[in-house]
Parts: sequence; C-alpha cells; structure tokens
Amino acid sequence: MDLDDRRRQVPNIVVSRLPLYLRALTHLADRGQAVTSSLELGRTLSISPAQIRKDLSYFGEFGKQGMGYEVDRLIRALSRILQLDRSWDVALIGAGHLGTAIAHYAGFTNRGFRITAVFDAEPSKVGQRLGRLTVRPMDDLETWLARSRVGLAIVAVPASAAQEVTDRLVRAGIKAILNYAPINLEVPPEVRIHHIDPLIGLQAMTYYL
Amino acid sequence: MDLDDRRRQVPNIVVSRLPLYLRALTHLADRGQAVTSSLELGRTLSISPAQIRKDLSYFGEFGKQGMGYEVDRLIRALSRILQLDRSWDVALIGAGHLGTAIAHYAGFTNRGFRITAVFDAEPSKVGQRLGRLTVRPMDDLETWLARSRVGLAIVAVPASAAQEVTDRLVRAGIKAILNYAPINLEVPPEVRIHHIDPLIGLQAMTYYL
Repeated sequence: MDLDDRRRQVPNIVVSRLPLYLRALTHLADRGQAVTSSLELGRTLSISPAQIRKDLSYFGEFGKQGMGYEVDRLIRALSRILQLDRSWDVALIGAGHLGTAIAHYAGFTNRGFRITAVFDAEPSKVGQRLGRLTVRPMDDLETWLARSRVGLAIVAVPASAAQEVTDRLVRAGIKAILNYAPINLEVPPEVRIHHIDPLIGLQAMTYYL
Repeated sequence: MDLDDRRRQVPNIVVSRLPLYLRALTHLADRGQAVTSSLELGRTLSISPAQIRKDLSYFGEFGKQGMGYEVDRLIRALSRILQLDRSWDVALIGAGHLGTAIAHYAGFTNRGFRITAVFDAEPSKVGQRLGRLTVRPMDDLETWLARSRVGLAIVAVPASAAQEVTDRLVRAGIKAILNYAPINLEVPPEVRIHHIDPLIGLQAMTYYL
C-alpha cells in the first residue's frame, strides 16, 4: 500500500479535525508550553481524549503512554501531514466588500497561503488595486488559471453568481474551494469544498443564551 | 431536574453539531425532500449515522426505527432546541472591510440574526452609513449595550485590538461572541465564543491536494 492509498484510508472527519489540533497546539507553543496531553487538548477543543488519541494514531506514534505529546514535534508532524510545510498560492474570486476583506486578511499569508490573483466581473472594479494586487476581469480567469497552475480558490461573490463561478473554477482544474457565499455549492466528488458559514457559529451559541 | 439542568447536561460537542444537522436538513427541504435518514445525513456531513442518532437522542425521539426522520419536523425541533424560533439582535464591532462585508451579509438576516448597531474606534468611520445603520463611536459602546440589552456581538476589528474590545464586551454583559479576528481570545467560562477561522478550512483541504 503506497502513501496515497494510506492517505485515502483516513476518514474525512479525522482529517477535518487535524487543523483544530494544530491550532490548539500552536496556541500552546505561543504561550511557551513544551508538553501537552490528549486530556488537555480535549478540554480546549471539546473533543474526547480517546478520540484525539485515535485520530492521531492513523498517522503514527506521537506520544508516550503517560508522558503526553511534545508540542513542537506534534506541530511539525501535523504540518507535514496536512502539507503545510510548503506555501500555497490561492486565486480569489470577488473584489467586493468581502473579497477586499479577504485580500487584506493577515491570517492567510502568515500561515502559508498567498493570494496571487483577484478576479471580478464588475468592469468598475477591474484594474483597481487591492493591496499588492490588481483586480483582473473574469474573462481572463481560465487563461490565468491554466498558466498559473494554482489549485486553490476562494469564492467571495454574491450567492446568485457563486455556482456559475464554481463551475468555471472546476472546469479550469481547481481542486479545492473555500466558499464564503451563503449557498450550498455543488462540486464533483474529486473537488474539495469548505463552506465558511458564520451562522453555524452563532446558532451553536444561542443554545446557551 | 429542570429544563436548564437538562440543557447543561448535553455535551458542548453535541450542541456544536446541531447547526450542521439543521443546515443539511434545510438543504434537503429546499430540494423538496420530505424524509431522510441518519445514513443520508451522515454521508452529507461525514459524521457516522450512529453518532447522529445518539446526538439527537439527547433531545427526544425524532425518528421511527426503519422509517427515518421527517425533514420538516426535525428542522422545527432543532430550531426550537437552538432557540432559533425567535430573532436575535447582534452588535457589530468594526466597520472596516470585514465589518462592512458582515453588515451586508444576507445570510444573517434571512436566518434570524439582525445587526442592530455598528461601532468603530476610527473617527473617520463614525457617522458613516453602513447599509441601514450609522457607525457609532466606540465610546458609546457600554451605554448602548446597557440600554439595548443585546447579548450577542460580532468582533471584526484588527487582531491587535480584539482582546481589548472583547474585554469591554464581556464587562458590558455580552454572553456570546463571534470572533473574526485572527487571534485566540480569552473570555470567562460563562461567555461563549466562536472563532471564524478560514485557515481551518483551507488546511483541511491541502491534505488532499
């Protein structure tokens, strides 16, 4: 069984938790903490310690019984597993309020994601500066993607335009999409999509109010 | 045991999954589907059917063995459990690119969350229109919150200002915060906080690229 087969064997839900572990560990490292445990991570993340140990066991042995995890070592391992030990170029679609906010978001660049082009359908936006970038016309999308070989895109267009934009991205070879539009987008099974839905966060809090 | 005790007994992780179930069910209802199963929901959400059945069982009996769930009935039940059968007023802190995008986000109003005030520390922003609202000065925050009795706030200020803003919100009685700043915020245990971190989504996708 080669590495690709092994990667495919890990359930999606396990993979989706790894960035949460990485964020909690980075937070501990920033505070200067060298060692942690599945118990401590579990408390921070509201995930059971047994679940955390099981998730990590898909990828090898990271802790010694009763000794906990070395924070730095586990950060490096998770970064490698998630392929974050390199930088990723990203195309941004939409230069409205949201696209502008995303283009200026410090959190991406600091953590290895670099927005390398911004596209908008609005003629008045095309040619405008957005941070280091100049807004490109949507007509250039396919040509630019073919040349740049970028595999990741962020969709920040109105809900009414989001599915059409997504279809064009998929046809142009984009393999992973971060969607900000408040709509469920359909993509073929080989394309990954992640929805940013602030409602999910609000709705989980109103339970307690 | 009264209702409040019963609510507190449900693990946070279970509560945090209810909005996901609600979103998947709403998607099915929009497509005109009347009945679903834990198997179908599980496939959509990458959560095991057993987990879904167990989560829902905290709140009562929603499906009949072998008959599945009535989509509309389960939507109504989850909305009631999450207290979404009413509307919620929200204060927005930050009127920059991100705050502007949030103020214009259609997804909130359509689903029962109404932004009723926007605050910014920048004198040049104060008094400007943002959709239906006029940006208020941060100096007015405490007075306005005391009068309005709003319990929810969205933090959309730069990372460097986010903790100070959060401390002021907490002291003024805010009980739940949706945080967009790329920083981990500290709040007392009785205050709920949810972080919108687009990196988590991107990082879970690079695994597969």
